Order: sequence, then C-alpha cells, then structure tokens
Amino acid sequence: MVDELFVTPVAAERDRELLRTAAAVGTRVTLVTDRVADSLSDTVTPQGVVAVVRGDDTDLAEVLTRGPRLLAVLVDVSDPGNAGTVIRTSDAVGADAVVLAGDSVDPYNPKCVRASAGSLFHLPVVRSDTGAAASDLRAAGVRTLATTLDADADDLDSVDVQRLLAGPVAWLFGNEAHGLPDSVAAMADARVRIPIRGAAESLNLAAAAAICLYATSRSQRAES
Amino acid sequence: MVDELFVTPVAAERDRELLRTAAAVGTRVTLVTDRVADSLSDTVTPQGVVAVVRGDDTDLAEVLTRGPRLLAVLVDVSDPGNAGTVIRTSDAVGADAVVLAGDSVDPYNPKCVRASAGSLFHLPVVRSDTGAAASDLRAAGVRTLATTLDADADDLDSVDVQRLLAGPVAWLFGNEAHGLPDSVAAMADARVRIPIRGAAESLNLAAAAAICLYATSRSQRAES
Repeated sequence: MVDELFVTPVAAERDRELLRTAAAVGTRVTLVTDRVADSLSDTVTPQGVVAVVRGDDTDLAEVLTRGPRLLAVLVDVSDPGNAGTVIRTSDAVGADAVVLAGDSVDPYNPKCVRASAGSLFHLPVVRSDTGAAASDLRAAGVRTLATTLDADADDLDSVDVQRLLAGPVAWLFGNEAHGLPDSVAAMADARVRIPIRGAAESLNLAAAAAICLYATSRSQRAES
Repeated sequence: MVDELFVTPVAAERDRELLRTAAAVGTRVTLVTDRVADSLSDTVTPQGVVAVVRGDDTDLAEVLTRGPRLLAVLVDVSDPGNAGTVIRTSDAVGADAVVLAGDSVDPYNPKCVRASAGSLFHLPVVRSDTGAAASDLRAAGVRTLATTLDADADDLDSVDVQRLLAGPVAWLFGNEAHGLPDSVAAMADARVRIPIRGAAESLNLAAAAAICLYATSRSQRAES
C-alpha cells in the first residue's frame, strides 16, 4: 500500500498517469528537489519518484478468498521495469492480482512504481514463496499455466488452452534470462508457449505477459 | 545493417540472445573493456554494447515491393527500450518490417539494439517521414490501423477490425506520452482501441503493440 509519494518536478511532468492516479485515490504527493529525492532513496540511478509504503499489504491467501478469475504470477523476475509493466497490463486487462514470487523484485522499487503507471494503487500486488503460491493456487481451484519456449508445450491458441482460459487461472512468468525453473513448470496444470512465426527466439517478458493476459481477458469476456 | 558489435564482458553475459543471433548471421563480435566501450559511444549511460552500422539500409518503398502482410509503424516513439521491444515482438509474430517514422528514436541506439535481442539482424527496420509513410502504405494497398485510447474507436476484437486484420495491414503506434498525432490518426483506415477492463488508463506502448501484433498474426495464421 503506497502511503505517500515524493516526486521531483521532472518526474511529475514525465509520470503524469502515476500522479493522476495517486491524486484520484487520495495519496499525498509532495514535490521535492532532486537533492531531497536522492537523499530519500538509496538507489544509484534515482528515478525522481520515492514511495512511502505501509506494511499492511494483503497476502495471497486473502486474494484467494475473493474468488479471483485471473492472476499473474512473476517467478524470480528481476527487472523492475518488466514487473511494473506486467502490473500495469494486469490492471488493464482486469486481472484480480499480481503475485511476486520467489526472488522477484520489490514492487515498490521506484522503477517498478514508475512502470506500473499508477496500477500499484489499483491492483493487489502480493509477495509469496513460489512453492507456497503453487499449492495455495491449487487448493483454491485456480489452474496454473506455465509459460515456456519448449516446442512440445501447448500452443496458446490451441483448443485445450483456450478452454482453460475460461478460468479461474493463474499465469506463471519466469525470469527474463532463465525462464521458469523446471520444477515450477512441472507443477503447473499446463505448459503453454506463444507460437513464434519469425526468426526471434523469444519475446520480451512484458510482451509475452501482455499477449497471454489479454488472450485470457478476451476469452473470459466472451464467456461472461 | 549492423556490421560489427563491440561488447563488454558484462554485456556479453547479459545479452546472450543478441550475441547468439550476431554469431548466427556472421556479424563480427569483439569483446572490449568498459573503458573502450565507453570511448566508442557518446551516451551518458553506456550499455556495454556498441554497434557499427553500414548506411545501406533498405527503405519503405523497397519493403512495399515485396508485398508485406503485416507492418509495425512507430510514430515519434522516443524510448529506445520500447522501440527495441516492438522490433523483437514484430519479428516474433512474423511481421515483414518495422517503420520508425517521424521523430522516432534511432534503431541503432544501444538500448534499442539490446532490447531488440537480435531481431535487428532479422527484420528490415526502415526510417520514413510520417506523411510519406502513410501515403506510401495507401498506394501499396496496405490498410493502416491507428491505435488510440478514444472511447469511440473500434474495439480490437470487433468483427470489423478482425476482418481488416487479414491484411495487408500496418499498425500505427504513437509516442509513449502523447499517442499518435490527431492528423495521423485521422488519415488511418481505422482507429482501434484495446478494450481496458480494469482501472488502468492505458497500456505501455510495447505491451499494446504486442497485443495488436499478436492478434493480427493469429488472424493471418488462421486465414492461411
């Protein structure tokens, strides 16, 4: 939960959607100089945005009591820009929450806050151990879909996967360089690959997540 | 056309897909120290990757003679990471080329080269004036789809838009902060919005492009 934002004038001009959202939900925003922003943050590449966070975040168990239909689970995702973009995309497609599992980046990292463009204020973002998340999701009847590049995985557009998308469903996205750990992919209800038609080996994590999450949202919209 | 890459050991370890692709297409890769990489580049935040580029790039007219079915056109896109990610996604979905129109970033910006993860070696990436691109596309019979947040635009999943996607089609994506200029959106054959189901105001440019390009690729795959 973001309690207060400190932003520099440059960041205020640049990150307008973030500030508009903060204002809309009643979060206090204070303009500060670059020097004050730097002194509030211990990062080596200051973003001009510092968030004061309260420690009363919700957790996955609480999210699961609300009967979610669509979740994004980031496993060991280290790039804060990617994490923030997935949070923004999850919000846009109407997902119920984002889970940062394992060694994933802190959602309140300033680069993540910026990339989320305000969606951190809208959407529950919870942390969890990866194994615990997998078993909690299973216990709650949420199917898990592991994204993979393996040629023998199911095609996103296959009838089998499209049927699963009706939900409730959780997409598991792995680290930018290494993908999902084999043990995590093996535990999932399905292993899904986005068909690649060109010469690229893979997609950027945030682009892959956008494709999978949007496909799910479209499918669930058609059902409802 | 990338003629040669100079990379630092850190970048070589980090950007493996880029280096694998360079090796596969026979581009010379030379390991250099941080100090040499910095001296080769005039950027204030060195990426550890310097590309030597030959000035014999293809142009939009030549791309259009080959009967493309899917193009991505970036209009005044300033973030090199976004541009590189769209180039990578365009390659992955089997698009024929990417057009960097107007004041868009240089595709050989080191951050763009990195984000493209090697797709700059696969896919024609051409520069064009925005107005000239629009008229060249029209003359070649390629329909243009302008992405917009306007509520009165056509829904991506509507029957009308899905019919257009059979192609040949060019998606127009605007600047991260300002979107497409009104004059450009007005010239397009259709104005399309990605339905937003949550509280986010919009999607990140690269995420929006991934959704639109993948939807087109899926539609064209189903047709062929």
